[in-house]
Amino acid sequence: MTRKELVENIKQKQSFLCIGLDTDVTKIPQHLLSKEDPIFEFNKQIIDATHDLCVSYKPNIAFYETEGVNGWISLEKTINYINQNYPNIFTVADAKRGDIGNTSKMYAKAFLEKMNFDSITVAPYMGEDSVTPFLEYKNKWVILLALTSNKGAFDFQTLVSENKMLFQQVLESSKKWGNPDNMMYVVGATKAEMLTDIRKIIPESFLLVPGVGAQGGSLEDVAKFGMNKDCGLLVNSSRGIIYAGNGIDFAERAREEALKLQMEMKHLLELYL
Amino acid sequence: MTRKELVENIKQKQSFLCIGLDTDVTKIPQHLLSKEDPIFEFNKQIIDATHDLCVSYKPNIAFYETEGVNGWISLEKTINYINQNYPNIFTVADAKRGDIGNTSKMYAKAFLEKMNFDSITVAPYMGEDSVTPFLEYKNKWVILLALTSNKGAFDFQTLVSENKMLFQQVLESSKKWGNPDNMMYVVGATKAEMLTDIRKIIPESFLLVPGVGAQGGSLEDVAKFGMNKDCGLLVNSSRGIIYAGNGIDFAERAREEALKLQMEMKHLLELYL
Repeated sequence: MTRKELVENIKQKQSFLCIGLDTDVTKIPQHLLSKEDPIFEFNKQIIDATHDLCVSYKPNIAFYETEGVNGWISLEKTINYINQNYPNIFTVADAKRGDIGNTSKMYAKAFLEKMNFDSITVAPYMGEDSVTPFLEYKNKWVILLALTSNKGAFDFQTLVSENKMLFQQVLESSKKWGNPDNMMYVVGATKAEMLTDIRKIIPESFLLVPGVGAQGGSLEDVAKFGMNKDCGLLVNSSRGIIYAGNGIDFAERAREEALKLQMEMKHLLELYL
Repeated sequence: MTRKELVENIKQKQSFLCIGLDTDVTKIPQHLLSKEDPIFEFNKQIIDATHDLCVSYKPNIAFYETEGVNGWISLEKTINYINQNYPNIFTVADAKRGDIGNTSKMYAKAFLEKMNFDSITVAPYMGEDSVTPFLEYKNKWVILLALTSNKGAFDFQTLVSENKMLFQQVLESSKKWGNPDNMMYVVGATKAEMLTDIRKIIPESFLLVPGVGAQGGSLEDVAKFGMNKDCGLLVNSSRGIIYAGNGIDFAERAREEALKLQMEMKHLLELYL
């Protein structure tokens, strides 16, 4: 998907919501467990119930890998279902990969070519040649970890070197590897007050913002400090939406939660865009 | 596997060789392509031909993921084959994972519990709570990225903060999360001269050292600067061994290359241990 298409989808749907498909077989409604592929069945119903309220889905790859071969089958069915039925959805493989060049190339092929995700999250620790293989696919995106939403973000990401924190160095350096048409950044909602400084380094780039909801970040602060002229935000919510209900009506409950966020996003888009 | 068992295996085999199973379906001998599972068949023959010369196998997970469901099946068959037939081999899932706590927990379950690898490589960027879920399994290991073997290692890993380079900060901080019985570090052979300083921070820990062979590192320098009283080294070679031949006799050719390294390691163990 191109940046232009993504921005158009945001404006049309009045939403910059990304729904995280952190699908855990121990947390999905019991009645699905008798289905042939409970994880896919859960995802399918969530997607059918929410696709008009969000612009993106983000399967968290760990939740599929932990189920082995069956999990991988559920993941492939999920991405294929989205691509076939809702082609204007921006898909994120939340994989946090990154390795030496010949290995990153293999991960890129797996997620961006074979499974045809629009984007993949990548960890920056190993530097340029671990990231650039993911940038070789046209209209595909790297979403690079910058400042994450967890407690451990303060262990290394905020270490100061040459007057810049590590995540700022990551932003500065990676600007030379990609551009706002093929690179986004992960910035946690729990650090919304730092978005003003982040926007000075990368004014145009899209940010994928986790941490709203279960992790405690504020959507309003994210929009206030992080929105740019193209919106420039994808705000993720996973558990707060997909596990809103646990009965037969779980997909409707998920829709209700997604709708609340979309309404708030509509308001924020009117306010700040 | 416990540290004690690993050290015993090294002494008994007079080898600290780890063989990287970076099995690429486009590089394996043509005659295997007609087999039902060419990747597993290749691995099986490599393992049968080399298991007495090495103490560890390290499947590079990207090479399996890039083949989708079939790759995952090949990976599971490979790890099961090693665990069943050669239980005194230390197995490494070279996955470079790391995410927020609840997600790292899923990766840990996938690799350390379900597939029963002895260890997994982990990226440190997201800090303590992204690493500790992997340390909750008894007699299993985290192998944390410190100073990698690629060019991009110098983009962030050597940035200086508070008089320490980032990889030194990673070593210092992570010593509080784990200990030499459950945590190793990746240190590239291409930076062997830095091993002296690294040993000042982590004298006892095992190091997994990639970069000998195809990437240009020197085994002798690694042993000279990096060996400790328990050896403390696992030196990896992937392409130089597994792709030594490309015909019917590929496994014998791989054995010859592994034997050369094992002989050199025997010599170095006598010299420095």
